[in-house]
Amino acid sequence: MTFSYEHLFEFTKNILLKIGCSEKDAALAADVLLSADLRGVDSHGVARLSGYVRLWEKGRINAQPKIRVVHETPSTAVVDGDGGLGLVVAPYAMQVAIDKAKNAGTGWVAVKNSNHYGIAGYHAMMALEHEMIGLSLTNASPLVSPTFSKERLLGTNPISVAIPAKEQPPFVADMATTTAANGKLEILQRKNLDAPIGWVQDKEGHPTTDSNGVKKGGALLPLGGDREHGSHKGYALGAIVDIFSAVLSGANYGPWVPPFVAFLDPDPNPVGDGIGHFFGAMRVDAFRPADEFKTHMDNWITRFRKATPTPGNEKVIIPGDPERELEAERRNNGIPLLDPVVEDLSQLGERFGIKM
Amino acid sequence: MTFSYEHLFEFTKNILLKIGCSEKDAALAADVLLSADLRGVDSHGVARLSGYVRLWEKGRINAQPKIRVVHETPSTAVVDGDGGLGLVVAPYAMQVAIDKAKNAGTGWVAVKNSNHYGIAGYHAMMALEHEMIGLSLTNASPLVSPTFSKERLLGTNPISVAIPAKEQPPFVADMATTTAANGKLEILQRKNLDAPIGWVQDKEGHPTTDSNGVKKGGALLPLGGDREHGSHKGYALGAIVDIFSAVLSGANYGPWVPPFVAFLDPDPNPVGDGIGHFFGAMRVDAFRPADEFKTHMDNWITRFRKATPTPGNEKVIIPGDPERELEAERRNNGIPLLDPVVEDLSQLGERFGIKM
Repeated sequence: MTFSYEHLFEFTKNILLKIGCSEKDAALAADVLLSADLRGVDSHGVARLSGYVRLWEKGRINAQPKIRVVHETPSTAVVDGDGGLGLVVAPYAMQVAIDKAKNAGTGWVAVKNSNHYGIAGYHAMMALEHEMIGLSLTNASPLVSPTFSKERLLGTNPISVAIPAKEQPPFVADMATTTAANGKLEILQRKNLDAPIGWVQDKEGHPTTDSNGVKKGGALLPLGGDREHGSHKGYALGAIVDIFSAVLSGANYGPWVPPFVAFLDPDPNPVGDGIGHFFGAMRVDAFRPADEFKTHMDNWITRFRKATPTPGNEKVIIPGDPERELEAERRNNGIPLLDPVVEDLSQLGERFGIKM
Repeated sequence: MTFSYEHLFEFTKNILLKIGCSEKDAALAADVLLSADLRGVDSHGVARLSGYVRLWEKGRINAQPKIRVVHETPSTAVVDGDGGLGLVVAPYAMQVAIDKAKNAGTGWVAVKNSNHYGIAGYHAMMALEHEMIGLSLTNASPLVSPTFSKERLLGTNPISVAIPAKEQPPFVADMATTTAANGKLEILQRKNLDAPIGWVQDKEGHPTTDSNGVKKGGALLPLGGDREHGSHKGYALGAIVDIFSAVLSGANYGPWVPPFVAFLDPDPNPVGDGIGHFFGAMRVDAFRPADEFKTHMDNWITRFRKATPTPGNEKVIIPGDPERELEAERRNNGIPLLDPVVEDLSQLGERFGIKM
């Protein structure tokens, strides 16, 4: 079934009001959450709404957080999210980074005591309208094994970087540091299809094509898939995201990151507070005149766009192009939701007296 | 043949003095260059010395550069390398980043008009003794095709991040954003061995196992290898390194980056000056007390080190461990050089009246 953006926005906002969010926070969180659906990252969108509500029911999400800066220098800050929705904590922290950048040239903000923040790209893209480059990192529940390990010690720990251009649309990379994001696996699971080798290992640590391998105690693999194809690099990238997000901020890291699912309890001996994020904002004109920079970005993008394609492929893709095109399409024609998601949201709506 | 570090250091320094470097610059450049040999990145070490000299002969390296800051804010700077050796320009720029961080919490320096800077990790590691996290990026001669392209538009564009710990040695990642670095291919070429699928594509853009594929007009592949295994992520990472290093600084980017080899001329219509780098330094205590941070880094490292290994593997490796162990070994027992490298250096020495 397909729903208009406006309909899903109102629904999401109303649910969040019911759990006690302020009007402003509910609207912001709905906007962040639905940007995932608009941009085609369906696993991180409204499908997760009932998951957030279950965490709130368990007392693991604070609907009325007092988010605040607890440490700062001219170009840095640490934000304590007070257990709030990451969907609200993250834009707050990114705004602090942007404000720092206005004065110091750049701003870098590590966040503790937060929760899942939706898609990384939303927050990085906040920098664009200020003629800044945006960076957004977060750690997440451990589903990924480092190279040579059977244990799940890292999340899919995404990296997003958004870079403004002039006439061209911005460059927006937003990627898990694994070969494939968990959402890609879920698509295969629903279709009963195998996964390519390099995406998953089984419980014993052997490569597997079983798309249910992670559910059976296996793990997602770092970008590269195996050592021969550079998985130690994907592992290092995921580790850097974990350390910047959580060791710098004072959040939980590695295997201590609290699980997103409410039926699994967090580690009884945490090493920090909640999950962690890391944001950066760099004023383009802290390096060279903004117009000059953006003109060269246009040239960069145009040159890559017109690169000769390999046989069977149409063109080189600039990071952010597919998501932007899908967003335009879905804003016009609506957001398709899978039947189980519609069912889940309908039940959620019934509980709170809100019609889906 | 094996040579002591001291011998190779004196040799390298004396060659650099002969081309006109100052005593200080020659010693610094020799130190940077040989750190690659010590750490096992043999392709980036003394084997490249005659390549630097040939670029100098062509007038493409300035042995007496006036390196200077041309633009700055409290947390940023742009450095013009004046065509100097990257081996000298890069440590200068990283020091500017460190000095900025002392005052502003962090420092971020983009560099133009530079040349090949040795291993990325050397410069990132400069931050460690200041209780800072170091970041080092550089673009490089185009040898890599973006996903879906036949053209070489990116260099192997490495990312290095160095993070201090307390009792544990530091975390030091230093990686090309390709599946495999060019040096790995060279090893296979010398042994007449095939490369795994995912490292190289041929001139037509098809995957190939030919380890000479790049020399025959093909290209290195971004980390991931192909679209199904996430090569669009490796491509995006390489692109980010290119943009930070060169579009921010005013250097050449993408296919315009001047080739390292002196027998290929740079593009007659450059889009900037020389090649570009990007450095960052973040004071750990700009986020939380340094001792607290370092204690948690020890905990992070220890936990990952003792993760249960997969069958047939001994342990999980912390980024930087193998290089540090090799460095200790080679400082004691000497640096092995291949016969063609020894021959090349001997000839270089003869020309300048310096005994190899």
